Amino acid sequence: MVIYDILKKKRDGLPLSEDEINYFINEYTMGKIPDYQISALLMAIFINKMNDQETLYLTKAMINSGETVNLDNIDGIKVDKHSTGGVGDSTTLILGPMVAACGVPFVKMSGRGLGHTGGTLDKLESIKNFRVNLSTDKFVNNTNDINISICSQTANITPADKKLYALRDVTATVDNLSLIASSIMSKKLAIKSDAIILDVKVGSGAFMKTYDEAKKLAHEMVKIGKNYGRETVAIVTNMDQPLGNAIGNSLEVKEAIETLKGNGPKDLFQLCLVLGAKLLVLAKRVKNEQEAERLLLNSIESGKAYNKLIELVKYQDGDTSVIDNPDLLPKASHIIEVKSKNKGYIKSINAEEIGRCALALGAGRETMDSELDLSAGIVLNKKVDEFVEEGETLTYIHTNDINKGKEVAEMILDIYKIGEKNHGSQQLIIDEIH
Amino acid sequence: MVIYDILKKKRDGLPLSEDEINYFINEYTMGKIPDYQISALLMAIFINKMNDQETLYLTKAMINSGETVNLDNIDGIKVDKHSTGGVGDSTTLILGPMVAACGVPFVKMSGRGLGHTGGTLDKLESIKNFRVNLSTDKFVNNTNDINISICSQTANITPADKKLYALRDVTATVDNLSLIASSIMSKKLAIKSDAIILDVKVGSGAFMKTYDEAKKLAHEMVKIGKNYGRETVAIVTNMDQPLGNAIGNSLEVKEAIETLKGNGPKDLFQLCLVLGAKLLVLAKRVKNEQEAERLLLNSIESGKAYNKLIELVKYQDGDTSVIDNPDLLPKASHIIEVKSKNKGYIKSINAEEIGRCALALGAGRETMDSELDLSAGIVLNKKVDEFVEEGETLTYIHTNDINKGKEVAEMILDIYKIGEKNHGSQQLIIDEIH
Repeated sequence: MVIYDILKKKRDGLPLSEDEINYFINEYTMGKIPDYQISALLMAIFINKMNDQETLYLTKAMINSGETVNLDNIDGIKVDKHSTGGVGDSTTLILGPMVAACGVPFVKMSGRGLGHTGGTLDKLESIKNFRVNLSTDKFVNNTNDINISICSQTANITPADKKLYALRDVTATVDNLSLIASSIMSKKLAIKSDAIILDVKVGSGAFMKTYDEAKKLAHEMVKIGKNYGRETVAIVTNMDQPLGNAIGNSLEVKEAIETLKGNGPKDLFQLCLVLGAKLLVLAKRVKNEQEAERLLLNSIESGKAYNKLIELVKYQDGDTSVIDNPDLLPKASHIIEVKSKNKGYIKSINAEEIGRCALALGAGRETMDSELDLSAGIVLNKKVDEFVEEGETLTYIHTNDINKGKEVAEMILDIYKIGEKNHGSQQLIIDEIH
Repeated sequence: MVIYDILKKKRDGLPLSEDEINYFINEYTMGKIPDYQISALLMAIFINKMNDQETLYLTKAMINSGETVNLDNIDGIKVDKHSTGGVGDSTTLILGPMVAACGVPFVKMSGRGLGHTGGTLDKLESIKNFRVNLSTDKFVNNTNDINISICSQTANITPADKKLYALRDVTATVDNLSLIASSIMSKKLAIKSDAIILDVKVGSGAFMKTYDEAKKLAHEMVKIGKNYGRETVAIVTNMDQPLGNAIGNSLEVKEAIETLKGNGPKDLFQLCLVLGAKLLVLAKRVKNEQEAERLLLNSIESGKAYNKLIELVKYQDGDTSVIDNPDLLPKASHIIEVKSKNKGYIKSINAEEIGRCALALGAGRETMDSELDLSAGIVLNKKVDEFVEEGETLTYIHTNDINKGKEVAEMILDIYKIGEKNHGSQQLIIDEIH
């Protein structure tokens, strides 16, 4: 087999065989095929697309390119969750403890990436001494003890995906359904949970800008998961405006703590409830989602979910007093209030633009070397469809750089579109794919 | 400007601007854009194509990537010729002296490439001491003295094309109309003749396998030439069977000498006459092709064309006695006669397969490091539509490796298809594009 023939085939729009996909993934991972041939292949895949069968083969080949994490030693039906990424999305920090408190093992190994704010690992690191590097043994033991563990990928998971992603990133071949789906799913499937819920975001602050794209991606990923013998469900959710009110690492941890106490933003809590209900059903903990919701609500009201977060922090060496007193989280030196210059209804708050503001404040990584400012970020005081008086606060900017903060304040005033009441309100949960 | 945006644009099927094309060609030539981005761009160009305007911009950018050869100091209207490559094509060695003998300056700077046999330069090097490396001054002076000069590209012509071609070769992006046309035309246009004739081959032994492809390429190249202000004409000619009888470097030189003496194969001579007539008209030497043909035929009958070849050899330090006595050309140690096992009409002689036989004998280069055997090759004794008796000679194999020769003999028997008379005969000159 030679890479030239594979390139030619895909160039001409023909489907690749499993052997051909295995060949190029293996040889490329081992450094035996140069970047310039694989980038040409990626462009051919991007333009001529892959069918479902090819996408599955690609996912499998990427899983097999590295180690997998066997979780057989964890009792029960283990669940995992993935979000395609949005702005202000601290769901995992709330959903995990809720599900675990309901008796379902919640396992999550995350990577670190670029983004408007840090990822789950970065957020957790806002908690003093919290340890995200766990051995697989410790990961397994913790989950058996307290039903929850969230750590970084220590094993050499899907090295093929890492190499391919780096190349896609510089060759304009990221936004292809098969390549996105296989990249996400290979990482998820390499960690052997029993059931997976996928939160596919759609809207200005999401990777997928249209419902149609998001739905296709959701279908593709569910198909891969099921074909791989894993219970997989996806929901498509709105990311036109940021989720919840907080955007920024320690700000989101604080918001997650409040939510676990029953005082969180409505949209964020609703999403956790919907995701959680599906996970409880997938894990056969309950018969239906109604029953699941009752259990989940009870985990909040009883304080069990909140206590579960404290347990998680304790088991991963974090300072639990931070949870009881979120003021101990990293704090920015300045809080700038952004006040509305108009009066009216909030028509839109472009999530991507808010994300860029957070990034500008240092809440996210622009390159893998960027240093995060865990304390920086934005807290929204008004969200879409709310009414605002002239002079009323729209957002609070948390920053250690007063000049940067003032720049962002100007940007925020542009981002908030204020005017007549919208016709109909935005739906948070848009679709559900089994 | 960044390469990522250019990649994205072409990926999405949008046309690139002149600035964008200049940018990526210049930066790539200077080594400022890595291969993996350009190979992805080439694949996007291959699949989504370039329009005529883009193809012209690409050609210009490649010309401007290196030196050009100014021929203003040559008197008269200078003509150049290019063939897209076939099997047994020694046209230049005959056409050049004929045209020059008719008083038209014939200028040709060739590159060396891969192929079933060597190129014009390799063939000329069969002549003892023949010098293909000339300074531009010498090239100009020779042409002014004797109306003909054929040498290698000494200047740093179209370095962008060299880099791009090397990348296309390993990424399955060679066979694209715009990329082929711009590659050929940039090299031609960098050497500033006044008129160009293009011989676009079509058939089994050609780059273009179908008439439709060949015609499109011819149109594209003529359009580029004219847009660049150069008189350009293309003819599409048949390359289903080899041209002439000889395939191999010194064998083709011998055949060219015979043709200049008036004893060459009919098809080869006909092609030279047609190409020559067009060049004489383009150079305004005559009013029409009928007049041109008379002049060209006279150049053969009077011995002027033959003498022109001797002059060419003398001016480039070659041993002219070789022309008078072609037996002084490099000779193979063995000549194997391949005799027909059947009787009937020759239905086809696949030119590409014959080319591969010549390559196997060492007549061509498989890689740029391959050593040529200038004496090796094949002489056809029977061509398509001729009748052959059982036991009659089909070809003569000239080789220095008797075992290789025997293998090739077996291959030849397979390549010659013998049977009923064909309905209608193959046309040599298929189309003409202005």
